Amino acid sequence: MNSDSVAMTDLNGGKNKPETVCIFGTGDFGRSLGLRLLQSGYSVVYGSRDPKNSLLLPTGSKVMSHAAAACEAHVIVVAVQREHYGFLRSLALDLERKVLVDVSNNLKRGLYPESNAEYLSRLVPGATVVKAFNTISAWALQSGGLDANRQVLICGDRADAKQQVTDIAQSLGFTALDRGSLRAAAELEDLPLQLFPLWRLPLKIAICLTAFIFFYTLTRLVIYERVTTGKDIAFRIMISLANKAFPIVSLVMLSLCYLPGALAGFLQLYNGTKYRRFPDWLDRWMLCRKQLGLVALAFGFLHAIYTLVIPIRYYVRYRYNAYVISLIKDNKTYEFDNTAAWRFDSYFSMGILGFGLFVLLGITSLPSVSNSLNWREFRFVQSKLGYVTLLLCTAHTFLYGWDRFLNPQSYKWLMPPAYMLSLVVPCVVLILKLILITPCVDRKVTRIRQGWERQAKTSANGSDSKIDQRLMA
Amino acid sequence: MNSDSVAMTDLNGGKNKPETVCIFGTGDFGRSLGLRLLQSGYSVVYGSRDPKNSLLLPTGSKVMSHAAAACEAHVIVVAVQREHYGFLRSLALDLERKVLVDVSNNLKRGLYPESNAEYLSRLVPGATVVKAFNTISAWALQSGGLDANRQVLICGDRADAKQQVTDIAQSLGFTALDRGSLRAAAELEDLPLQLFPLWRLPLKIAICLTAFIFFYTLTRLVIYERVTTGKDIAFRIMISLANKAFPIVSLVMLSLCYLPGALAGFLQLYNGTKYRRFPDWLDRWMLCRKQLGLVALAFGFLHAIYTLVIPIRYYVRYRYNAYVISLIKDNKTYEFDNTAAWRFDSYFSMGILGFGLFVLLGITSLPSVSNSLNWREFRFVQSKLGYVTLLLCTAHTFLYGWDRFLNPQSYKWLMPPAYMLSLVVPCVVLILKLILITPCVDRKVTRIRQGWERQAKTSANGSDSKIDQRLMA
Amino acid sequence: MNSDSVAMTDLNGGKNKPETVCIFGTGDFGRSLGLRLLQSGYSVVYGSRDPKNSLLLPTGSKVMSHAAAACEAHVIVVAVQREHYGFLRSLALDLERKVLVDVSNNLKRGLYPESNAEYLSRLVPGATVVKAFNTISAWALQSGGLDANRQVLICGDRADAKQQVTDIAQSLGFTALDRGSLRAAAELEDLPLQLFPLWRLPLKIAICLTAFIFFYTLTRLVIYERVTTGKDIAFRIMISLANKAFPIVSLVMLSLCYLPGALAGFLQLYNGTKYRRFPDWLDRWMLCRKQLGLVALAFGFLHAIYTLVIPIRYYVRYRYNAYVISLIKDNKTYEFDNTAAWRFDSYFSMGILGFGLFVLLGITSLPSVSNSLNWREFRFVQSKLGYVTLLLCTAHTFLYGWDRFLNPQSYKWLMPPAYMLSLVVPCVVLILKLILITPCVDRKVTRIRQGWERQAKTSANGSDSKIDQRLMA
Repeated sequence: MNSDSVAMTDLNGGKNKPETVCIFGTGDFGRSLGLRLLQSGYSVVYGSRDPKNSLLLPTGSKVMSHAAAACEAHVIVVAVQREHYGFLRSLALDLERKVLVDVSNNLKRGLYPESNAEYLSRLVPGATVVKAFNTISAWALQSGGLDANRQVLICGDRADAKQQVTDIAQSLGFTALDRGSLRAAAELEDLPLQLFPLWRLPLKIAICLTAFIFFYTLTRLVIYERVTTGKDIAFRIMISLANKAFPIVSLVMLSLCYLPGALAGFLQLYNGTKYRRFPDWLDRWMLCRKQLGLVALAFGFLHAIYTLVIPIRYYVRYRYNAYVISLIKDNKTYEFDNTAAWRFDSYFSMGILGFGLFVLLGITSLPSVSNSLNWREFRFVQSKLGYVTLLLCTAHTFLYGWDRFLNPQSYKWLMPPAYMLSLVVPCVVLILKLILITPCVDRKVTRIRQGWERQAKTSANGSDSKIDQRLMA
Repeated sequence: MNSDSVAMTDLNGGKNKPETVCIFGTGDFGRSLGLRLLQSGYSVVYGSRDPKNSLLLPTGSKVMSHAAAACEAHVIVVAVQREHYGFLRSLALDLERKVLVDVSNNLKRGLYPESNAEYLSRLVPGATVVKAFNTISAWALQSGGLDANRQVLICGDRADAKQQVTDIAQSLGFTALDRGSLRAAAELEDLPLQLFPLWRLPLKIAICLTAFIFFYTLTRLVIYERVTTGKDIAFRIMISLANKAFPIVSLVMLSLCYLPGALAGFLQLYNGTKYRRFPDWLDRWMLCRKQLGLVALAFGFLHAIYTLVIPIRYYVRYRYNAYVISLIKDNKTYEFDNTAAWRFDSYFSMGILGFGLFVLLGITSLPSVSNSLNWREFRFVQSKLGYVTLLLCTAHTFLYGWDRFLNPQSYKWLMPPAYMLSLVVPCVVLILKLILITPCVDRKVTRIRQGWERQAKTSANGSDSKIDQRLMA
Repeated sequence: MNSDSVAMTDLNGGKNKPETVCIFGTGDFGRSLGLRLLQSGYSVVYGSRDPKNSLLLPTGSKVMSHAAAACEAHVIVVAVQREHYGFLRSLALDLERKVLVDVSNNLKRGLYPESNAEYLSRLVPGATVVKAFNTISAWALQSGGLDANRQVLICGDRADAKQQVTDIAQSLGFTALDRGSLRAAAELEDLPLQLFPLWRLPLKIAICLTAFIFFYTLTRLVIYERVTTGKDIAFRIMISLANKAFPIVSLVMLSLCYLPGALAGFLQLYNGTKYRRFPDWLDRWMLCRKQLGLVALAFGFLHAIYTLVIPIRYYVRYRYNAYVISLIKDNKTYEFDNTAAWRFDSYFSMGILGFGLFVLLGITSLPSVSNSLNWREFRFVQSKLGYVTLLLCTAHTFLYGWDRFLNPQSYKWLMPPAYMLSLVVPCVVLILKLILITPCVDRKVTRIRQGWERQAKTSANGSDSKIDQRLMA
């Protein structure tokens, strides 16, 4: 029972006559919703053509014919597939002036020209249709909203009908959000059919980059070797080549994650205000920065394991052993190279510390962790620690190159080693950031983000106390 | 103050006379609840026999004798241990027609024949007893429900009393769920005493499997060696044997996690409907699939580290060195085996990619992550990516065996190598899945899961728009 | 529209006249709040001096002059920076008897002598000021509270004004918590400026410990070698020394995480009651145990990777190879040391299992995971499994020392090896815990934690059913 009806029944003197909700459809969703409504103090009446399925209905609910059930309640949840909406036309009289809640989803996008809710509204013009609950699964209803998405998105053409559905959603422990008129139903019906929309761009970038680096390295190492010396080292594809592609993709994507923030800073400097919209491509890029970073972390994780597995590999053990055997056979002395010791150890250290910080960034982007941080803490981790991570990983790559860096001997067929290509984007990002944090530029950017505008148009209400969060990282 | 009373006082003209809640008991829970009630706008009166402890009570609350406190409020929270309920009998007159909220828990299950709430109801028959808040800890009350379970389970025999407690719970920021009559109190009192009920079966399977593989490998390797050659290689127990048991348990449990879904698919095909209940054992198995998968991941994680630690082990370094020394002493040439290079590298690659995907599956089963996925995304990750993980890990095991596979020379005392045993269940699962995804079978299963029934009994309301979630993985 | 107004408009016969909220300021926060209010059914009116910025305002809202906008609503949100509050003085007449919601934050702490809300209250004495929403970011408002902190902290001097803001916050899907009078505003304004307050002590301890161990080991290894043999092994700083400091800091901090719980147990035994407050330092220590543990885990993680990277290091490969070459040149036989095999493998096994459990502890302290555990489960993991982790890690360190332990030959300049120092705190904690879990002591502690007091003062209401959670770990 929602608080609205409590207040009213109090005045009537008779308390606790629970509000009744009618549900058409006894499938999984209808059953779960009915159980949850009962638990929250509502009366539930099922409308069904077939009493057979009523065996599985929650105890405490009633089952009737559709027409009889419709008379019992003002709000009727239509938990039926769109294909079977037809029978509702015959109930038009019983549904007059009722609120019909459309909870349906389709199996694919674009199956029908209009949304299910608008179709329902056309079928039963005498009733008010509200689209709701379609983003909530039967499972989320059963598990009490604890372990699941808590947001119920609502749309419809009449405010009072929406308010009644909002009250029900809130009584069930959900947060109701109004998404406007029934025309928004098509959008709401698309939501459960989306498959990682924000991850598509980062994954596409990752796949293209991986493919490019892979074929580039394949040419430089395997094919070049084959052509020039005739040796077949194709077995190196499995680990050596993968372990060249993964770290490069990881580093480039990590820097792509920080590039839009730097670009936006320069754009604001150029515009002299924060009140001009960014170009669309920059907006879309900024929105998927978290995903870019997490894909980069996944590639970094694979790089770490691929690296740690090196000494168990047959090929590596063979090379080490062959080296020792050749040393002994040729009776050479085996000298310790102090510089190599420094270089290798620094190289590993940078990599490990960078990876450790990267994992930390990943953990703080888990929803439950980032929720427990305040705005300043989140910004500190994602921006400051993020740049330290980028710096460490870039240093790791530079140390990997060491003196081979820009060495023309390491070019094969005029192609520089792949790790050199991978350093371009991170270096650009680091240089841009370096410019942005010089005191004089930093002061200007901070003022702009606090609402200051170049043309001295700054007004009392043209600014607020919170710096644009989208720019913080 | 809850919205109900606001509405009423508005009409009375006098706004903001906060509702009073009485709390018997000044222990941790009573204090925390009182503080939270005060923060949410209630007045709080403590009933206490002893004014000494009132030093720690939240500022703003009043302390009185039990009888005086009971007169101040309609709702009385009994935050006292069951052993001390006796004193309430003497207050029977003061408690007449009041709502007593029993928040107590016991230290062990089955200590008393009846639940605390029913005992309280028997002691004070003139009052209405509502069981609530016992699943919420004093800590959760203090931390504002942000960092803690937000569900308050409520049961009681009178709907109006339950509604009042529901209103209070909602005002404190919790989600209230009605669990029926006071007879359900015993069940609610058991909840905080449960110790990982869903993890028991998976952990039992893991422990039995580990023990079996361990002793099997112990016999095949250590005891066999001792008996046939007299050599003591018992030191291999610590890492080599553990690292044979862990991957096998991980692979078998991962496949056990996908087996029930496949079985359920075949059962639905056989039944020709989704409206028949699964056998109980299958239901219970399906409910703990997430736990099976996470235990498998834990074993896979241990396997990964045990493998990466191999080259630092004394025994392994000794063997490598001894091999090189023998090569030199015997003056043999050291040939590179191209097939071995391919095999080892593929073997490691499959394992690493499988482990990477497995970690991804683990991350998406974190509550806060799975909440942010819609149903289609969750299904994609847990089902599609899950089968890819299983496929990669099975391929990893096959490559480990390579040509030793089914080679009778690798049998010792007629016992095949343990990894061969471990391949049985995953192969069965993969074959079953392969059958289920062939187009003709897949079409039939999809139709059944959408509500179609073989006997053409399909009805408009016998189906709904959401496929049974329990079957999705 | 909140339920309060629904109830009232119902009586007036006219339903669905939405409540209007006025927002001064069209910055990010004002826009986001307005959008959210519109989505939750409110009417929104912006007060602005400059119509230019109204281009970005949410559709459905109106923009007027400040004075006109103020007349439209009873509740006015002041989404303007404190520096620009001045213009409100001129609106004093229009703001008479209105509720002004101060949502502002400052850029730094201690910028102003009084809180922004109190300053606002002084500027417009005729209005009632309520501080609210300042801990909610514009981003959290836009993302619907799903992916963000859901708590709105409210303070103010008049209960009715606070109730109105509470109603609005609840309608937007947030949990409202009253933090008292307007004097609390300074505290609320400090909250978003805090930077990991609970992490400061653990991080300080970690940094000091790391520095101490680092310089201690630097002296013992690098400087000692330089002075006594003249050899420069400074390259060992990068990995060898780091990998001595990290495990030691990890072990010491893990034990520091369990020390206060043991101390508190002894203190309760000594006091004979749980109703006496702990000394302040112990309270503060207990509050940051989770952070201590997580910092220890981070160091343990670095230790794990630094260890796994060992066999790829140039220095290590050189040493291994040089050893094999010297064996061959000197024509020595290479004997297998069975004890060394046992010792190394046990040492690694303890470490891996300890690290595995440690990761499990870390996962269960993620907010969303710990929320899904009941009190008994949380205690089982954090206390029981925590001590097993400590035991395994301590055993790992003992096995590392093996027979070198307390061996005077391993002293350099009278300094014992660093790992020996690291064993002091864990051993103390384990011994204290061992005493606490002996049956006779355990019984006494359990009784005390259930409310028993030595002076037989135990009273019916002096105890409750929940053991003090702060002591559970």
